[in-house]
Amino acid sequence: MELKMDRAALSDFLRREFQQVNDDFMIEEVAPMRVRVRLLAHERHLRPGGTVSGPAMFALADVAIYLAVLAMVGPKGLAVTTNCSIDFMRKPASGVDVIADARLHKLGRVLAVGDALLYSDGMAPPVARAGLTYSIPPDRA
Amino acid sequence: MELKMDRAALSDFLRREFQQVNDDFMIEEVAPMRVRVRLLAHERHLRPGGTVSGPAMFALADVAIYLAVLAMVGPKGLAVTTNCSIDFMRKPASGVDVIADARLHKLGRVLAVGDALLYSDGMAPPVARAGLTYSIPPDRA
Amino acid sequence: MELKMDRAALSDFLRREFQQVNDDFMIEEVAPMRVRVRLLAHERHLRPGGTVSGPAMFALADVAIYLAVLAMVGPKGLAVTTNCSIDFMRKPASGVDVIADARLHKLGRVLAVGDALLYSDGMAPPVARAGLTYSIPPDRA
Amino acid sequence: MELKMDRAALSDFLRREFQQVNDDFMIEEVAPMRVRVRLLAHERHLRPGGTVSGPAMFALADVAIYLAVLAMVGPKGLAVTTNCSIDFMRKPASGVDVIADARLHKLGRVLAVGDALLYSDGMAPPVARAGLTYSIPPDRA
Repeated sequence: MELKMDRAALSDFLRREFQQVNDDFMIEEVAPMRVRVRLLAHERHLRPGGTVSGPAMFALADVAIYLAVLAMVGPKGLAVTTNCSIDFMRKPASGVDVIADARLHKLGRVLAVGDALLYSDGMAPPVARAGLTYSIPPDRA
Repeated sequence: MELKMDRAALSDFLRREFQQVNDDFMIEEVAPMRVRVRLLAHERHLRPGGTVSGPAMFALADVAIYLAVLAMVGPKGLAVTTNCSIDFMRKPASGVDVIADARLHKLGRVLAVGDALLYSDGMAPPVARAGLTYSIPPDRA
Repeated sequence: MELKMDRAALSDFLRREFQQVNDDFMIEEVAPMRVRVRLLAHERHLRPGGTVSGPAMFALADVAIYLAVLAMVGPKGLAVTTNCSIDFMRKPASGVDVIADARLHKLGRVLAVGDALLYSDGMAPPVARAGLTYSIPPDRA
Repeated sequence: MELKMDRAALSDFLRREFQQVNDDFMIEEVAPMRVRVRLLAHERHLRPGGTVSGPAMFALADVAIYLAVLAMVGPKGLAVTTNCSIDFMRKPASGVDVIADARLHKLGRVLAVGDALLYSDGMAPPVARAGLTYSIPPDRA
């Protein structure tokens, strides 16, 4: 399996197609069936106390798996999230970025399934884990 | 079972404690083990095409169950989400609010479990469903 | 929406195609997008203490949504579970049947999504809740 | 972190406390926060076509995380599953065992969270993945 989009191509795509969230995320690494994405801890992602909010962590896991799918199938067609199950395990460190290590476990004709571990930058134990399913539209050929 | 916080008390609490998200949500109904909450479709919640984003729907389901818990246990202690499983079933209608109908199924000593159906305002079939678990801190007594 | 298979047709199907689990389940009610299925509390479903096991409750939720899909699309094609998220909320009553009230929220071209509440027979609060997604094979036409 | 129960101790525990499922499972490896457990593909776990059933895979993921928790906290107290989200990704190979590689990501005072990848013996891509939460009773001290 080889990449259809590398880090530069995915970063361009994010900038062009998702202007609203583009400065929230930074793609750090892209490999076959794997990506690492950073959520930049802007004020708007923080809860009282300065920790990154649940919805912001959900958004990070979601975009990470989305990018892992795009890296493999290319920019055609619009994959949509059909399911996410997320476990919030620890309070993130205050005011620091959160990083998602995401893997795809399945890339089928109609469904892609992956999971992600989320870490507060500089903290060893993960703060959250998520499993996601994406539906891949048939017209991606 | 009776309410420890009614609609006015919950709305005050949201305004006071969650200033960052306060103008995103409007509490519409509160009953024992049930709430109805509206996500106001601001520009920042929309994806290209004008539909409410996945993270915004996650945030709505999350706040709805949180408010349902607070309604029953009162404002003391800080419940935290431990798990959410969400199914995105249909594309929301463009540019309209999304409404969550949330129920608690369990309100235990340490865990509360509920679920929510999310609807685009004016559209009959639900756009998403979510099940959530909250951990309730011991000091709430 | 009308039924393609009623209670008798579904019960026949279960008996014919799933001999291994057939005497575990009894279909109690079938309506458009809804079924009620009973798990008969045989010895093999019980944990020490006499309560129905987690895997047996999973199996019940799974078969209930499966039957709800078949009721709507008919016996052709083989739907397969792609995701289940289940919350175990209370200890079931000892030695009694467990009943699933299942609803479909979406019946799409490729995916069906439903959820179920599970009750110990004669006990009001639910013992578990589950959300399930089924993939429907294209050849069902 | 060190083990409170090793492979022999866990196998004994399983044999003694879970006679009903004992000959279904074989513990293959135990390490801090990790276990590998094999589901022996008995007739009763198979679906038509000879593949291991969904409920049997759920049971395997469930027991694997349970054993990973026991390995760390010891045999006192009875941990109970509170949530499982499982993705079925591929059809298992016909008639062969399924193996779960399970990890704990959190072992807290009241909750433990882990996940597992499930493989058909001899097949590289995983057939399922699951995330589970266990509630740990307070009396385990």
